[in-house]
Amino acid sequence: MDWQHQDIQQAAQRLAPYHVLTPCLRNDYLDALSGAQLWFKCENLQRTGAFKFRGACNALLQLSQQQRQQGVFTVSSGNHGAALACAGQLLAIPVQVAVPNNAPQVKKDNIARYCQHITEIAPGMAAREQFINARQQQPGTLIPPYNHAHIIQGQATAAWELCQQQPQLDTLLAPLGGGGLLSGTVRVARSLGIEQVIGAEPANADDAYQSLRSGQLQPARPPESVCDGLLTSLGEHTFTILQAGLDRVLLVDDEQVIDAMQLLWLHLKMVVEPSSAITLAAVLAYPEYFSGRQVGIILSGGNVDLKRLPWH
Amino acid sequence: MDWQHQDIQQAAQRLAPYHVLTPCLRNDYLDALSGAQLWFKCENLQRTGAFKFRGACNALLQLSQQQRQQGVFTVSSGNHGAALACAGQLLAIPVQVAVPNNAPQVKKDNIARYCQHITEIAPGMAAREQFINARQQQPGTLIPPYNHAHIIQGQATAAWELCQQQPQLDTLLAPLGGGGLLSGTVRVARSLGIEQVIGAEPANADDAYQSLRSGQLQPARPPESVCDGLLTSLGEHTFTILQAGLDRVLLVDDEQVIDAMQLLWLHLKMVVEPSSAITLAAVLAYPEYFSGRQVGIILSGGNVDLKRLPWH
Repeated sequence: MDWQHQDIQQAAQRLAPYHVLTPCLRNDYLDALSGAQLWFKCENLQRTGAFKFRGACNALLQLSQQQRQQGVFTVSSGNHGAALACAGQLLAIPVQVAVPNNAPQVKKDNIARYCQHITEIAPGMAAREQFINARQQQPGTLIPPYNHAHIIQGQATAAWELCQQQPQLDTLLAPLGGGGLLSGTVRVARSLGIEQVIGAEPANADDAYQSLRSGQLQPARPPESVCDGLLTSLGEHTFTILQAGLDRVLLVDDEQVIDAMQLLWLHLKMVVEPSSAITLAAVLAYPEYFSGRQVGIILSGGNVDLKRLPWH
Repeated sequence: MDWQHQDIQQAAQRLAPYHVLTPCLRNDYLDALSGAQLWFKCENLQRTGAFKFRGACNALLQLSQQQRQQGVFTVSSGNHGAALACAGQLLAIPVQVAVPNNAPQVKKDNIARYCQHITEIAPGMAAREQFINARQQQPGTLIPPYNHAHIIQGQATAAWELCQQQPQLDTLLAPLGGGGLLSGTVRVARSLGIEQVIGAEPANADDAYQSLRSGQLQPARPPESVCDGLLTSLGEHTFTILQAGLDRVLLVDDEQVIDAMQLLWLHLKMVVEPSSAITLAAVLAYPEYFSGRQVGIILSGGNVDLKRLPWH
């Protein structure tokens, strides 16, 4: 991949008839608390409640007519599954989603809201690969959750829009799980000459931090975090992009995430999931990288079980 | 008061340097559920987390220089107190807020965030009047929470902006407590020729419904509702305006409010308080007034105790 931004611009044009142009919000109290100017790109207000719609829809829009007719499939315990199903519904493309049976109920419900064809599978990589191998014997295209050029281009449009909404930003900050959103954000930052781009990763799911530090894609230790959207490991594509263009990974523990989540709910009045709140947690835990800066933050999603909030 | 809209336009100009131009959001799922097109004016994103900032700031901006120096005071258990204190802080006007000691902690905290001068008083009308009578012996201007022309003009700017953001609306809907917000909304609706304007009131705090039905301002029965912002009774100003221009009051019980609040959190991803969610509850409980229509809804505020949610 190159660093030109033509493909991101094209993805933005491609998505325009389908996605929500999400607002960018700020809050006096959070600015005062952080000593920075924080601009929150509210992708929790995106279709299906997460930025994932951008990548999924961008990928579907680049399928051939035959591929569209044959349909697509994926494995997802969360927001990618719902996003793909929703994009498929809008574009009349059949979508099958395989869901690990231990996925959070609120995310299963969100997938079921858009998807007619759900297959429950066992948790873990083995069951996932078994499903994909079997499914690939039949017609249909696999749309992976993050490690794919069209997905990354789509996710990049969030940061792209944010920088159009707030051209004065000097820092971009996004959550880091599989690296799709952050890879897109890095490409936008480098293409527009943004000074600093940072990822926030759970301290107990730090495969990206370890991979970037060692210079080699590290197998994930068994991850454990309240950030259920950030438990996946980097892929080859996302590793390559982050290695070339990311300034820094900041590690944040769950307690900090839960505190930040409450601050966002209480002051920004936004329902965001832990995987999004990790960004504000990083700002508050590492003021040396944010103080006095104009920071664009991607609030990645807001699919939370309201009956099982992490502070109860 | 007349029905011309010049004073609302002037209030909007007056507020422009100070308030947040809140976004207007919609959601596919809630549209499908209601059979209407719903546009939510997000005043939970207003300064201090509620529309009340508009009225308070508009009132302060019309004080004389002497009045500004002498300061202002009010009695409030909730959003008006925080709004007045915040507006006072911005305009360098001293503000004293008397707070009943049974006010929700989250609202007390919100007042304390902006106010240096808080006085705790006993709950109820007697203590309230005692405080006001004593306080009026000293210099300073009372800024009441709703029954005042400048307050109503300020609150009207929420509906005014909403109708500029979405000129196709044929129905406006707002919560009904003391009637300040709804009176402003009625004036905007009549001034712009909006077809229908409706208030949503708690079934167990229905003094406005009873007053409008009987044609006489009714004393409130002891109100009881999860909608802590809607327990106040109409005043003479607001009664007169609603009597002349409101189409209908819809009564909603607490269970419906709590269900609607969860829907707004889950799908619109907005932290709103029960007093705001009552609007969506009314839409779902009385489809005959909303089905097929373009409905502008004012989400009045989002100051909620996250540790004491009504569905727990």
